[in-house]
Amino acid sequence: MSQQRVTYTPESLLRVAVELFNERGYDGASMGQLAEAAGITKSSIYHHVRGKEDMLRLALERATGVLFALLDEPDATTGRAIDRLRYVVWRATEVLIEELPYVTLLLRARGNTETERWALDRRRELDHRVADLVARAAAEGDLRADIEPRLAARLLFGLVNSVSEWYRPGRSGAGPRQVGEAVAAVAFDGLTA
Amino acid sequence: MSQQRVTYTPESLLRVAVELFNERGYDGASMGQLAEAAGITKSSIYHHVRGKEDMLRLALERATGVLFALLDEPDATTGRAIDRLRYVVWRATEVLIEELPYVTLLLRARGNTETERWALDRRRELDHRVADLVARAAAEGDLRADIEPRLAARLLFGLVNSVSEWYRPGRSGAGPRQVGEAVAAVAFDGLTA
Repeated sequence: MSQQRVTYTPESLLRVAVELFNERGYDGASMGQLAEAAGITKSSIYHHVRGKEDMLRLALERATGVLFALLDEPDATTGRAIDRLRYVVWRATEVLIEELPYVTLLLRARGNTETERWALDRRRELDHRVADLVARAAAEGDLRADIEPRLAARLLFGLVNSVSEWYRPGRSGAGPRQVGEAVAAVAFDGLTA
Repeated sequence: MSQQRVTYTPESLLRVAVELFNERGYDGASMGQLAEAAGITKSSIYHHVRGKEDMLRLALERATGVLFALLDEPDATTGRAIDRLRYVVWRATEVLIEELPYVTLLLRARGNTETERWALDRRRELDHRVADLVARAAAEGDLRADIEPRLAARLLFGLVNSVSEWYRPGRSGAGPRQVGEAVAAVAFDGLTA
């Protein structure tokens, strides 16, 4: 083997760690495996980060950060609730794809560590903010009345989050924006011609 | 502790095993944990089944069996493709809820054992049959033209399967049939009033 010349920034190392966590599960992944995947020594890794949970925290902060940020974008905060909701659904799908490994890690967090529990709290807060928007759109008479707003919110989250189960960069013809638009179109107008 | 008097049929023992597999992951679950969860001895378990993979196989056969069966129901095999598809979407949601632990196990199968690989093959076959129905409905002009049939199929699967992430028996007001109808309504007609 040739001498390794890979150099990492904290960000590029985090990316390798997140891929490993998604592949093996956070609990199952070791710092030794990370060193192997990154092609550097364990001590080089500790030069960048304090440890595994540190990286989990950084990754989940990134995922929740981008999702909260989109809720504060102008199109998510002004106008009729149904239009804001539609914007949030497509943007959340777009962001999920753009930040796929990070959001996937967030969606798989099960609360086994303090960091995971913190992330679940943040995720619940996100869900509440979107559920509020759904309730508001329903109150404004813009959502079909035969589906309870709580159920509608769950189906919306389910549809958006399910993209993480099948989307693989480069494989599908559709990019982040296009998939986001398709998700919003199905969710609000349905698949029927 | 009082002397345990629990008796199991192969089916009721399987149910306990499936709950354990879903909670700990199939790879992480041991026969010792199963004995503990069931409140019987390991040797009593081996009276019913040959081992862990045997139970995985039975559980995944049950999940794939009910899903294939619904594809052969009259409303899934006669009429216009869009109507058959709509029927399949709501029935698949209903079956997913009725057989929640079994279908959840199927959706989490990752191909780590021969049985899991067999289940993934069956799942792929199911996906193909539904994707064919989507393609046929698109060819008949009944699906919106701005979403590619392959993407439409993925979104449909995603929406149906996502129900397994949040549905908890007894917690939600909506039952299997009602959630199935809501999923089909959103998928084909959208949430907009």
